[in-house]
Amino acid sequence: MATMNRERSEDSAFAAGRNSWNRHYHNSVVQPLLTDLYQITMAYAYWKSGKIDDNAVFDLFFRTNPFQGEFTIFAGLEECLKFLDSFHYSETDIEYLKHALPQGIEDDFFEYLSQLTAKEVTLYAIEEGSVAFPRVPLIKVVGPLIIVQLLETTLLTLVNYASLMATNAARYRMVAGKHIHLLEFGLRRAQGPDGGLSASKYSYIGGFDGTSNVLAGKLFNIPVKGTHAHAYITSFTGIDELKTRVLQHKEDGTTRDILELAMEHRTNLASVLDVSTDESSEGELAAMVSFAIAFPDGFMALVDTYDVKRSGLLNFCAVALALNDQGYRAIGIRIDSGDLAYLSCLARETFERIAERFKLPWFSKLTIVASNDINEDTILSLNEQGHKIDCFGIGTHLVTCQRQPALGCVYKMVEINNQPRIKLSQDVGKVTMPGSKNVFRLYGADGHALIDLLQRVDENPPEVGQKVLCRHPFQESKRAYVIPTNVEPLYRVYWTDGRVAQVLPSLEEVRERVQASLKTLRQDHKRTLNPTPYKVAVSDNLYNFIHELWLQNAPIGELA
Amino acid sequence: MATMNRERSEDSAFAAGRNSWNRHYHNSVVQPLLTDLYQITMAYAYWKSGKIDDNAVFDLFFRTNPFQGEFTIFAGLEECLKFLDSFHYSETDIEYLKHALPQGIEDDFFEYLSQLTAKEVTLYAIEEGSVAFPRVPLIKVVGPLIIVQLLETTLLTLVNYASLMATNAARYRMVAGKHIHLLEFGLRRAQGPDGGLSASKYSYIGGFDGTSNVLAGKLFNIPVKGTHAHAYITSFTGIDELKTRVLQHKEDGTTRDILELAMEHRTNLASVLDVSTDESSEGELAAMVSFAIAFPDGFMALVDTYDVKRSGLLNFCAVALALNDQGYRAIGIRIDSGDLAYLSCLARETFERIAERFKLPWFSKLTIVASNDINEDTILSLNEQGHKIDCFGIGTHLVTCQRQPALGCVYKMVEINNQPRIKLSQDVGKVTMPGSKNVFRLYGADGHALIDLLQRVDENPPEVGQKVLCRHPFQESKRAYVIPTNVEPLYRVYWTDGRVAQVLPSLEEVRERVQASLKTLRQDHKRTLNPTPYKVAVSDNLYNFIHELWLQNAPIGELA
Repeated sequence: MATMNRERSEDSAFAAGRNSWNRHYHNSVVQPLLTDLYQITMAYAYWKSGKIDDNAVFDLFFRTNPFQGEFTIFAGLEECLKFLDSFHYSETDIEYLKHALPQGIEDDFFEYLSQLTAKEVTLYAIEEGSVAFPRVPLIKVVGPLIIVQLLETTLLTLVNYASLMATNAARYRMVAGKHIHLLEFGLRRAQGPDGGLSASKYSYIGGFDGTSNVLAGKLFNIPVKGTHAHAYITSFTGIDELKTRVLQHKEDGTTRDILELAMEHRTNLASVLDVSTDESSEGELAAMVSFAIAFPDGFMALVDTYDVKRSGLLNFCAVALALNDQGYRAIGIRIDSGDLAYLSCLARETFERIAERFKLPWFSKLTIVASNDINEDTILSLNEQGHKIDCFGIGTHLVTCQRQPALGCVYKMVEINNQPRIKLSQDVGKVTMPGSKNVFRLYGADGHALIDLLQRVDENPPEVGQKVLCRHPFQESKRAYVIPTNVEPLYRVYWTDGRVAQVLPSLEEVRERVQASLKTLRQDHKRTLNPTPYKVAVSDNLYNFIHELWLQNAPIGELA
Repeated sequence: MATMNRERSEDSAFAAGRNSWNRHYHNSVVQPLLTDLYQITMAYAYWKSGKIDDNAVFDLFFRTNPFQGEFTIFAGLEECLKFLDSFHYSETDIEYLKHALPQGIEDDFFEYLSQLTAKEVTLYAIEEGSVAFPRVPLIKVVGPLIIVQLLETTLLTLVNYASLMATNAARYRMVAGKHIHLLEFGLRRAQGPDGGLSASKYSYIGGFDGTSNVLAGKLFNIPVKGTHAHAYITSFTGIDELKTRVLQHKEDGTTRDILELAMEHRTNLASVLDVSTDESSEGELAAMVSFAIAFPDGFMALVDTYDVKRSGLLNFCAVALALNDQGYRAIGIRIDSGDLAYLSCLARETFERIAERFKLPWFSKLTIVASNDINEDTILSLNEQGHKIDCFGIGTHLVTCQRQPALGCVYKMVEINNQPRIKLSQDVGKVTMPGSKNVFRLYGADGHALIDLLQRVDENPPEVGQKVLCRHPFQESKRAYVIPTNVEPLYRVYWTDGRVAQVLPSLEEVRERVQASLKTLRQDHKRTLNPTPYKVAVSDNLYNFIHELWLQNAPIGELA
């Protein structure tokens, strides 16, 4: 099976736009047994009841946008397609199921399972990386009831966290603004090793610029970043621990003692910066010198191990000037504690003063990275206070989506054997939209998306310039005519006849899609505080269809 | 390498007490590149600075218990050991690193990396499944600086979520009480596929009885459970859709029409239960009959698709009585919406009435499972209201640890080349405990744990019956004498000389360890509301050592 997948994926759509490692990457736990047992007990009961030729339509959707926002980024589609492509119960899977299911299951059922694939399934979806809204099915799955039911849990697992993470990342990108560099640093706090990998991947899609996670870099070709931890600084206690001090000049090759140069600069700088060299740490200086010798072209140092003002900044600037003497330009600093607004302004001011004093204009532009427990609110607050940070490294809050760690996607049957199904609930928000549907996004004259419109599949699509009646699915009086200047059909067939039916975009392309898709949304839908809900409507035809079925299915109560 | 691991693990400690699938299971993404890039840049800088023979001690610990509680369950140790066992950079890893690291890295470093293993590392840890407290290192890693540093992120990833999840599960177990069955149903909402698997594994360790996740069942030999979803019920619209209606008697083999039997019972029951058969769904009845035919020995049905009182319960009881006619006993019902306290009492009362009426005492004991968005607070509230639920199926809140989705474990250098290291911070809570330490748990006369005591490694362990001075690590005046009736050394060597140094417990044993360990804690440390903090102290010797170093390292400030 492993071999088959590898061969298959090489000449399939998955190969497009990938690096060589990712081309072979398939998350080994994404397999048909990664599901809830009840899917398999249902499969047996369907099989046993002779429902083997039944056909069904299921919708995968969410009911509320996460993070008190009014949009969601749809992600995880490619993983769903990989799952369909490899869907197959192995011999040990069958062996395990014989042991895990109740006694008395007929052998023919296991034979049936062992032959089962996703070949007869058709999967429609909106484009990965698109903005999406409550109740609009992200994915519509059509096919034999049993297999379509068996896909439920795995598809939900693959879409839920991916979309939540991409949405979270997109929100950080919005509050940070487009000129700030955003790095994902969350692996150590992620929910499981693979949670960390998914976080790296989907935060990149959502608008981050890179990750600290090396394996994510290898597998998904995402830029990886990182310098050193406090431990590196504290591993040196003094300058006598430095075994190497010399560095060749970048151009002329002459060697000089970097420590000596740095110590001279430090003495000068102390008076420029109005601090005393006595208060700065010699261990820190030694650590920075050694790091500069290892990475003369990529010198970036953590400056808060002892004291940013009295030690870290002074030592960093001294080493940066020593590197400059040898023809190298430092990159910048990272601050991992304290008052980030104040310290970043202090650092920038220091850099500017040195730039002027030493006639080194680039010094004023050194990068300032901040990375201590940052979330959306911290960034908003820093924006308000004013800061000079160029780059945020964000961990825990980003990767665990602390504000709301789960997106509630559900997977509901809406049609079986061409008969619509409606799931009623006393909570109107939980009533499902019956039948197989199409979705269109209608755009206004200014290019912004106005409304998403769900129709029954046999209706004519809305037309540009033609008046369309859009109705609230449940509130009779809420109706509006829309004359779209552009109509975008949201679904494409992504899987049919046992293969991926589209050339899939690369990770970069999905990432660009996110920003392009967000641009079509009006600003008031995207703002952090009290955003305006985006409208999702149904056609008049679908409205009537829903409500007829509702009345047919809802028993007339009795007051007692 | 893969082959080597497989051979090695078969005759190693990992084989003990496992089923055959798990023996071969190794999470494929847990590999040396599953780390932050800065670990590797630091490794190069250490290497380049001639620190290749430096030796270091790192402590892995957390600073605050999760969920506003006063205890944490330590988990993830076995995965850490597997990681050490397989630590090795593959050829493609090296190839990738050459591309990802800055230009100019010396080739010899990559050669060094390609030979690197965890052979020279020694890992001490407290027993997996033990209760643990802030600041007490869960794991102490000793060995060459470079490799010990390189392990940081992966060890944190493996311990953080595992411990958080096990703790969360243990808390659910405590509020539910020991007689309630707890099932983990969270796969679809977990943070990534592997987040789902880890959730199943560590919630089982923490005290759950099973999971819906089939792959977790296969890999970890955890009981898997599940019946059907609402979709199963709605896939039937009426009794004419039933293609099979007959069931053989369990003992005498005679066949009867189950639907016919159920319909007769339904008519009788309607009057007993004071409802009308007109209001009950025929589709639901058909679905239940078909499910009963598929699983006559395991009939468990979802009763809230239409209306629990007027339809679900009536249909379930009718089918259960029909099964009884054919020699089978139903299992019970699941309720997935509505007022769980009220509906469970209604169901129990119904079962009791039927038990009496039909002289079937077992009917009153049918299982009632509840499963709608349950968290700790829901269970506490249900306990207060009174309910008749036997089993909770818990998803989102459990697996994402919604109340606090990350445990903040950190990994700090405390010694290098036999020199202690202290990390100072303006926040006292962030000051590290320097030096290599031992930890003892002191027990009182009633068998409860009194205090955890950290000592320097060269001190004599506390002795039973001897007075020990226990000091607060930072508040000079907080001291207490303790005369322990039992002294438990918390550390064991788990990894040394390139191999696992203990026979590792099975998952079952770790699970039992959790409950045994929790039992040693006084109730007031465990309660949900305002629990009493458990004390963690340092010896007088360690206290003085910390504070001398602190003074040596802290610069005397200047007021300006």
